[in-house]
Amino acid sequence: MDLNILDHRLRVTSICKNGLMNFTHPLIKLIFLRNRTRCKFFSLTETPENYTVVLDEEGFKELQPSEHLQVEGSVWLPLNVVSNGNASSSSQAVGVTKIAKSVIAPLAQQHVSVFMLSTYQTDFILVREKDLAVVVNTLEEEFNIYREVGGEYSAVLSQDVRNGFQKNGKEAPQLTVHPVLIPPNQFCVMSLDPDTLPAIATTLIDVLFYSESPKGGALPSQDLDCIKFFSFSLIDGYVSLVMDTEAQRQFPADLLFTSSSGELWRMVRIGGQPLGFDECGIVAQISQPLADSDISAYYISTFSFDHALVPEEDLESVTAMLQQHRAEPAC
Amino acid sequence: MDLNILDHRLRVTSICKNGLMNFTHPLIKLIFLRNRTRCKFFSLTETPENYTVVLDEEGFKELQPSEHLQVEGSVWLPLNVVSNGNASSSSQAVGVTKIAKSVIAPLAQQHVSVFMLSTYQTDFILVREKDLAVVVNTLEEEFNIYREVGGEYSAVLSQDVRNGFQKNGKEAPQLTVHPVLIPPNQFCVMSLDPDTLPAIATTLIDVLFYSESPKGGALPSQDLDCIKFFSFSLIDGYVSLVMDTEAQRQFPADLLFTSSSGELWRMVRIGGQPLGFDECGIVAQISQPLADSDISAYYISTFSFDHALVPEEDLESVTAMLQQHRAEPAC
Repeated sequence: MDLNILDHRLRVTSICKNGLMNFTHPLIKLIFLRNRTRCKFFSLTETPENYTVVLDEEGFKELQPSEHLQVEGSVWLPLNVVSNGNASSSSQAVGVTKIAKSVIAPLAQQHVSVFMLSTYQTDFILVREKDLAVVVNTLEEEFNIYREVGGEYSAVLSQDVRNGFQKNGKEAPQLTVHPVLIPPNQFCVMSLDPDTLPAIATTLIDVLFYSESPKGGALPSQDLDCIKFFSFSLIDGYVSLVMDTEAQRQFPADLLFTSSSGELWRMVRIGGQPLGFDECGIVAQISQPLADSDISAYYISTFSFDHALVPEEDLESVTAMLQQHRAEPAC
Repeated sequence: MDLNILDHRLRVTSICKNGLMNFTHPLIKLIFLRNRTRCKFFSLTETPENYTVVLDEEGFKELQPSEHLQVEGSVWLPLNVVSNGNASSSSQAVGVTKIAKSVIAPLAQQHVSVFMLSTYQTDFILVREKDLAVVVNTLEEEFNIYREVGGEYSAVLSQDVRNGFQKNGKEAPQLTVHPVLIPPNQFCVMSLDPDTLPAIATTLIDVLFYSESPKGGALPSQDLDCIKFFSFSLIDGYVSLVMDTEAQRQFPADLLFTSSSGELWRMVRIGGQPLGFDECGIVAQISQPLADSDISAYYISTFSFDHALVPEEDLESVTAMLQQHRAEPAC
């Protein structure tokens, strides 16, 4: 299999809930006006705590410094795995499950923090630029590693990036077992033709920027246990949307599509306290048992918490699995 | 003819050019998300100096006080004239020309300031609430005057509003003859079905909020003498747009419509210095000679300047007329 180091230098930021309106102008530009910006990697995820915005340096320039904006200090690089035709894996699972054993687990063992961003099209594994040497060194046995520069891919060997290479601490990382929350919302992972993005503009703007304002006088009739989670990304021209079925009903049914019609996902939200960016192995903690059982999962990290999405029909076995895992935290 | 005093209490405000981005959030709500607001009267006009926003009190609540926002101190009431079927006027002209002699001139003589807002559908004559008694007293000979309250119209007589009535100064108002500018832009006055507003959302957002940002690296190739003028209004559910042909080309041709296809207008911009709100007779100065020659005109006041739009084919005679008027300032 191939592992690509993509040609985007990313920043991970967070806009506080009541500060979003101050960023409406740049965010609408980044989402809808491709002619006006050179940004090629943009992702916005609303959670109950805040809005996580991951974007490349061109996009980051659009965000004015503000008390409402928090910026993680590092530059992050997105990796993705491309199974070249004759995929050796017999797994039918999709998403982070496919890379749990080959990427997530080895990086966790090497104490490399990862920030995951699953989309409709692929799963981006974000690693800190400063960790790149460790990453290449760790993964080059399993993968052909390529680095994209200006649209061209060239092979990377660990000696190419050994400059500044420092193996992270060798002691086995201390794994904290984080509490999980499983809200009742049902989620869908969708895409649409980027040329039809204008057709959903007012709905998307309404959902993203005005969902807190009263509508027709009344507040949304959402189940109190449901959590707010909405993710939009526009990466290299591809659109991906993750939303619950309540939000989905506001969109025209004929424009958005899912991989298999009607596929619904449930969320496992990880962390009772904000997770921070330095702990390693959080993704591994969830994705390893899923991989053992070949259960598909999307995984979306945000500024404060991590979120796995698993098929609704597998929720029971996932819950059992997590409980067992909690009882006997392995590795 | 009937004169209606409409049920909107309006504020006239101005957002400075580089402050617009701070108002993107409320303005997009007011333009596109009718479910989220009770505002029923909204108008936004971009000129080279600033953005003039005229809106009712529900809309005004959405604008946070800011160094970028100037607010004219008065409450303004919109009037409009309804010719009931058997219009006595034999005029074929439309717009402000039709009301020049019956409304504009008498109010100017009574020293009442007016703020004009022509739209595709009608011409709103805004007067200060405090001047209402003078207005009714001045116009009741010529018109049946009705006041709209909660959708119902009831007849108004001057004794109903005489409370607090004070005739403005009787001396003939000192008329300043203001310089005019006639830019080369060609304008169209258009409308669209409000249900299709979402279909032009990204284009409208682009034109309104991002026209200053470089697009695809290059600045718009507009003639240097052309002026920036774009007006959008959403009043009681009706949309009106005034834009030049360069802006028009960015919109899908099948959604916007004009009254007679291909009708183009030229602008007479009034005022070398900002006009302020207290001088009377500015509209009269332009509209009277137009009425004498039965030339149609739209008229849009903004925070700093006034703008008349006249049919392209009449521009020559309008220019001649204004020069003559300047030579011998009458009344």
